[in-house]
Amino acid sequence: MSLVEAYQRVRNHSLNLCKNLITEDYSLQASEEVSPPKWHLAHTTWFFEQFILLPNDSTYEVKHPQFNFLFNSYYNSLGARTARNQRGLMSRPSVDEVKIYRAYVDEAMSNLIQKNILELSELVILGMNHEQQHQELLLSDLKYNLWFNPLNPSVMDISEYTPETESVWISVNGGVFEIGFKGDGFCYDNELNAHKVYVQDFEISSALVTNGEYLEFMNAGGYDEPKYWHDEGWAWTKDLIVKAPLYWETKNQDWHYYTLEGLKPVDKESAVAHVNFYEASAFAAWKGMRLPTEFEWEVAQDQFDWGKRWEWTNSAYLAYPGFTVAEGALGEYNGKFMINQMVLRGASVATSPEHSRPTYRNFFHPKHRWQFMGIRLAKSI
Amino acid sequence: MSLVEAYQRVRNHSLNLCKNLITEDYSLQASEEVSPPKWHLAHTTWFFEQFILLPNDSTYEVKHPQFNFLFNSYYNSLGARTARNQRGLMSRPSVDEVKIYRAYVDEAMSNLIQKNILELSELVILGMNHEQQHQELLLSDLKYNLWFNPLNPSVMDISEYTPETESVWISVNGGVFEIGFKGDGFCYDNELNAHKVYVQDFEISSALVTNGEYLEFMNAGGYDEPKYWHDEGWAWTKDLIVKAPLYWETKNQDWHYYTLEGLKPVDKESAVAHVNFYEASAFAAWKGMRLPTEFEWEVAQDQFDWGKRWEWTNSAYLAYPGFTVAEGALGEYNGKFMINQMVLRGASVATSPEHSRPTYRNFFHPKHRWQFMGIRLAKSI
Amino acid sequence: MSLVEAYQRVRNHSLNLCKNLITEDYSLQASEEVSPPKWHLAHTTWFFEQFILLPNDSTYEVKHPQFNFLFNSYYNSLGARTARNQRGLMSRPSVDEVKIYRAYVDEAMSNLIQKNILELSELVILGMNHEQQHQELLLSDLKYNLWFNPLNPSVMDISEYTPETESVWISVNGGVFEIGFKGDGFCYDNELNAHKVYVQDFEISSALVTNGEYLEFMNAGGYDEPKYWHDEGWAWTKDLIVKAPLYWETKNQDWHYYTLEGLKPVDKESAVAHVNFYEASAFAAWKGMRLPTEFEWEVAQDQFDWGKRWEWTNSAYLAYPGFTVAEGALGEYNGKFMINQMVLRGASVATSPEHSRPTYRNFFHPKHRWQFMGIRLAKSI
Amino acid sequence: MSLVEAYQRVRNHSLNLCKNLITEDYSLQASEEVSPPKWHLAHTTWFFEQFILLPNDSTYEVKHPQFNFLFNSYYNSLGARTARNQRGLMSRPSVDEVKIYRAYVDEAMSNLIQKNILELSELVILGMNHEQQHQELLLSDLKYNLWFNPLNPSVMDISEYTPETESVWISVNGGVFEIGFKGDGFCYDNELNAHKVYVQDFEISSALVTNGEYLEFMNAGGYDEPKYWHDEGWAWTKDLIVKAPLYWETKNQDWHYYTLEGLKPVDKESAVAHVNFYEASAFAAWKGMRLPTEFEWEVAQDQFDWGKRWEWTNSAYLAYPGFTVAEGALGEYNGKFMINQMVLRGASVATSPEHSRPTYRNFFHPKHRWQFMGIRLAKSI
Repeated sequence: MSLVEAYQRVRNHSLNLCKNLITEDYSLQASEEVSPPKWHLAHTTWFFEQFILLPNDSTYEVKHPQFNFLFNSYYNSLGARTARNQRGLMSRPSVDEVKIYRAYVDEAMSNLIQKNILELSELVILGMNHEQQHQELLLSDLKYNLWFNPLNPSVMDISEYTPETESVWISVNGGVFEIGFKGDGFCYDNELNAHKVYVQDFEISSALVTNGEYLEFMNAGGYDEPKYWHDEGWAWTKDLIVKAPLYWETKNQDWHYYTLEGLKPVDKESAVAHVNFYEASAFAAWKGMRLPTEFEWEVAQDQFDWGKRWEWTNSAYLAYPGFTVAEGALGEYNGKFMINQMVLRGASVATSPEHSRPTYRNFFHPKHRWQFMGIRLAKSI
Repeated sequence: MSLVEAYQRVRNHSLNLCKNLITEDYSLQASEEVSPPKWHLAHTTWFFEQFILLPNDSTYEVKHPQFNFLFNSYYNSLGARTARNQRGLMSRPSVDEVKIYRAYVDEAMSNLIQKNILELSELVILGMNHEQQHQELLLSDLKYNLWFNPLNPSVMDISEYTPETESVWISVNGGVFEIGFKGDGFCYDNELNAHKVYVQDFEISSALVTNGEYLEFMNAGGYDEPKYWHDEGWAWTKDLIVKAPLYWETKNQDWHYYTLEGLKPVDKESAVAHVNFYEASAFAAWKGMRLPTEFEWEVAQDQFDWGKRWEWTNSAYLAYPGFTVAEGALGEYNGKFMINQMVLRGASVATSPEHSRPTYRNFFHPKHRWQFMGIRLAKSI
Repeated sequence: MSLVEAYQRVRNHSLNLCKNLITEDYSLQASEEVSPPKWHLAHTTWFFEQFILLPNDSTYEVKHPQFNFLFNSYYNSLGARTARNQRGLMSRPSVDEVKIYRAYVDEAMSNLIQKNILELSELVILGMNHEQQHQELLLSDLKYNLWFNPLNPSVMDISEYTPETESVWISVNGGVFEIGFKGDGFCYDNELNAHKVYVQDFEISSALVTNGEYLEFMNAGGYDEPKYWHDEGWAWTKDLIVKAPLYWETKNQDWHYYTLEGLKPVDKESAVAHVNFYEASAFAAWKGMRLPTEFEWEVAQDQFDWGKRWEWTNSAYLAYPGFTVAEGALGEYNGKFMINQMVLRGASVATSPEHSRPTYRNFFHPKHRWQFMGIRLAKSI
Repeated sequence: MSLVEAYQRVRNHSLNLCKNLITEDYSLQASEEVSPPKWHLAHTTWFFEQFILLPNDSTYEVKHPQFNFLFNSYYNSLGARTARNQRGLMSRPSVDEVKIYRAYVDEAMSNLIQKNILELSELVILGMNHEQQHQELLLSDLKYNLWFNPLNPSVMDISEYTPETESVWISVNGGVFEIGFKGDGFCYDNELNAHKVYVQDFEISSALVTNGEYLEFMNAGGYDEPKYWHDEGWAWTKDLIVKAPLYWETKNQDWHYYTLEGLKPVDKESAVAHVNFYEASAFAAWKGMRLPTEFEWEVAQDQFDWGKRWEWTNSAYLAYPGFTVAEGALGEYNGKFMINQMVLRGASVATSPEHSRPTYRNFFHPKHRWQFMGIRLAKSI
């Protein structure tokens, strides 16, 4: 597949994800952390315009100069931007105007790629990966937004339920391992600089923790026993009166779970989702076990199936040795988030096709639950 | 005009106000105080369904039982409802579905009115007045919501600029006056019980304070001199760093003002709008004068023009002697807001036709500015 | 009694109120609304220094120039001051230093009064009344602060329990009455300008609502029935989960009440205290009655006993006709609080001797409960 | 020195630190993070009573059962306790009573130690180390509290200024190192389990960053250039309008710095103090360098002087391999804080004598500045 074809495939996938939405859905923003679908569609387009077309195509004409203000996400070096919690207030430009904007940029991009294929391919591929990240966010944000609607709308054909097999313990002998990306293809800067890490002996589960197992924790009073919890996790459960994963609610006395296909009974055989780091850690402590580090996960990952949930690790999101920040705005991509976030490894049912690899480092603040986050257990030997 | 015709005229006016909106505009909610246009359209419809159709038409069939939850505003006695600050999150039902809901209720209402015209006319007229109140809110809320959009959209043909004539002082001799509604037509419960009030000698201005006069106050440092301000007004200006009325911004070094027709230069001859009670009081104090009481206003109102701005008075919104609360949910209409609100008298450019009278008591918390609020000065003699 | 003697009597009374305190008690500040005893002792002293000694005694030497910053309360025109919520953080100057400061100012004041008795008497009397206001605040603030201590300390011999007699309805025929202060002695600016007010026929209770009656309201579910409550009162009870007056707590399954003499069982015969305006109004609504206006109270007050509780009225705290603000910092005394406060009439068990009169207008925000506030019922006829 | 003597020496040191305080200083609490001196004195005493006397001395009589509620710090398993932000409100028990409580416990402890020296020595030493931790907190909390006082009190003879020597780069060759505590003496559970870590080649500075160097960063606009900052660090500087380290203020146009000896001009030769992790990282980024990891620091620490500042590392505070939590309340000591905190290594001018070692892991949230925190630079080779 040519780069142009790959570009178009990624771009079309974004639109395709929205095919069941009504116009009103495109503007939803229920909290500062999530963005409206329209914003995702526009922001990913702006990224190509800003970082590829403007610096590399002297004939490119910006149709809407204000879109830089409207659709910049967090690039401080590129000037003022819409406050993050006001993205849902931009009723104009309309969804249709944003789709026209996408088509306009796509045409210019397609032409430019064909002209400068060698020079620009790295940047184009970065932009495609950036859009794939936003495709997953679009889904998880949308789910969060629609959850506020008492009508429990169904908008997507994504099966979030996939039965887990029984857990087997995989043993790994300690030693020096090489961690980080080493291949030829694309990776983010935070995976670069493959380097040695000493890992101690450990065991890791072949399966994710299921809803059924998590229910046992809940029924055993896990949310009310401080000794399983980090201090700030405990405060979080008490402040927000949390007793179950996100999207769980009781209906007719049974636990149900809101999915992109609507409200459904909790499936005990499937991997639990939408727990945060505090909950994942507390569950592990209740089991007398722990979460794996990101290094253990990377070392053992070829011995188990993964890809349905992002998996919390007990590693903080920090720079690999020798990590350097790129010049200019793209340098803001990863490094500036390297504090107070924990690493997640794997991929989820909402991850875009071809957007996962064993060295991929996802990261979120420990309190967040709206991504498709799950739990894999480990133990020291 | 028959009651059915009057009903239909009010109902059509609501839709007509939205004629320049795009679908995306209908869901905007920039703060808890304002509601999206779609919500106003649905809530006013729900009001007729809930208070007239359901109790009086045994053949009426509720199509969407969940709309009671979605579109109840503040009637505690009618059960749970959508949190006020989440009205903008209800992407479903769509705008089209809400319009179908309106048509469905309108047909049932038209039939019912024709059958029970005598019995129901009072309630129907209350519902129409309720909808007219929401028509004004729809406009002022919409203006507030669109103001967050850097594109400064123009969505309405409402001229907010109307030159004031020169102020003349109108003198009134004190004595006992009768205050409150005495006629035959419709009024709210808070205007009822016409009663005697002793008013001292006073003077009141024939004209509203203009933008030009307000600019003098601003240029004289009025926002930085505590002695003109109530203590909590002073704290308000300092906390929010307020230096001008709402919707004023400088562009190319000149004051501009956002209107429903887009951003425009401030017109010095027109009445100032979008000031709160603190600002109105501070302006009056700077002038060595004061705001009129609502009784003074009512006593003198036939001697000056009014109707472009709601006019802040120095009267707290309290019950008239003998005020009683109706039985049931409609009893929640007015009485429960009688604390920490100040009375405004008059009407504004956004007030619906035939929805003003000299005894009408509008009320808002002293901090609010998003209605079309202005200033008329008075003084004791 | 000479003015000097009267001055000294008031000043000594402040110290006398603190006679059971330990040094640590003098610095307590549990919320922004309350001030530490030390601050009250220092601020009232600063008031005499600032407004009497400095302008009138050229020989007076300021010992601690920083005290102006430390002990100014809210006079914006006198410059910067300690943030109100940080008064408890001023461990220095010590209690002993503040007492020395008091003695120093008292000596200068005594000398000055004797020299300029005619000229200054009005200001001195204002300062004495100011200190008497702070004496009541000192007690109510102290009670609030000590209530946070699980040891329930007893620090004062003030009997808060005084049995009420049975209620009799007092009828008053409506008409024009003269309201406001007319005598020769001292009054605040907010009582001045005696003026005519038309009052309708009404009845008022001879007794205050008792703890026993209030318990009936509580037991009847009064806190859970929205129809009795103002909208913001209802929100207040729900946000803070309020179910009883301030200082009430259950101990061994019985209601107890924290007093300045320690924790005691609730006395059903005594007047309820520490309810806010929302609670007072809700109680009256539950009874099918209402609170009196401040004018009704003033008209009828010579027909019932009062003085144990400040009594909430249904009048907003607003200027009397012709109210004017004094020049300079003293002009900040009352007018700037005339918004979002309700008037209380009467006096309380904590009011200083000789610091009450029928025209006295106390005022607090409707949410406040930490003063000795009670309920007297009224009804229209 | 015998264990009893060592115990008494530690206990006396706490009282000695307070020797210049006045009674009023003992209750200061300016924010939730800091505690009043009286609380530190009482809480450390309660620790011995709770964990040693009660379980091990059947003759020990608790004098004040309520002190468990008052002086428990964070042990969830030991029941309810005073809210952390209300420690300053406990005027009772008085300072004198707390000192009597200390003497009472000390006598019982001295007797018990002499009887059970072998069995209890581990626990006693833990209690002594716990008290030493609180001695440092007592000083840093006190400094923070007194800083709110415009009188800039001087209460301690601790020289915070100690000139740094010129920086030399120390090179370390990478490889597998053993990290963690290996000796015989006391250490905390978070230092246990010495284990192998692979460290890459690196260089580390022999000197701490000085006030003079930090001023260069400030003068170069370091606080206004987003590229040096973590995203949440940038938000922190903008939200709180931070432009300098804590305790820095301009006076007569020169930078001054509040110390426990009062306000002093900033000494350019001394190590900067009271910067948080965001500031330390931004400074390092501005220099084109980075902070060391805690492993690099431990590997290289015998090649440089340390002990004046706690030194921020770029390591998150996480469990060492094989970390386990002790049974019972003491298990809450360290593990539950292992999230969203960064490790600091070293010791400070406020650290108690004999309370530092190369494996000691201090930790704070990246936003905190009130400890004596400084910066040591590192770089990859």
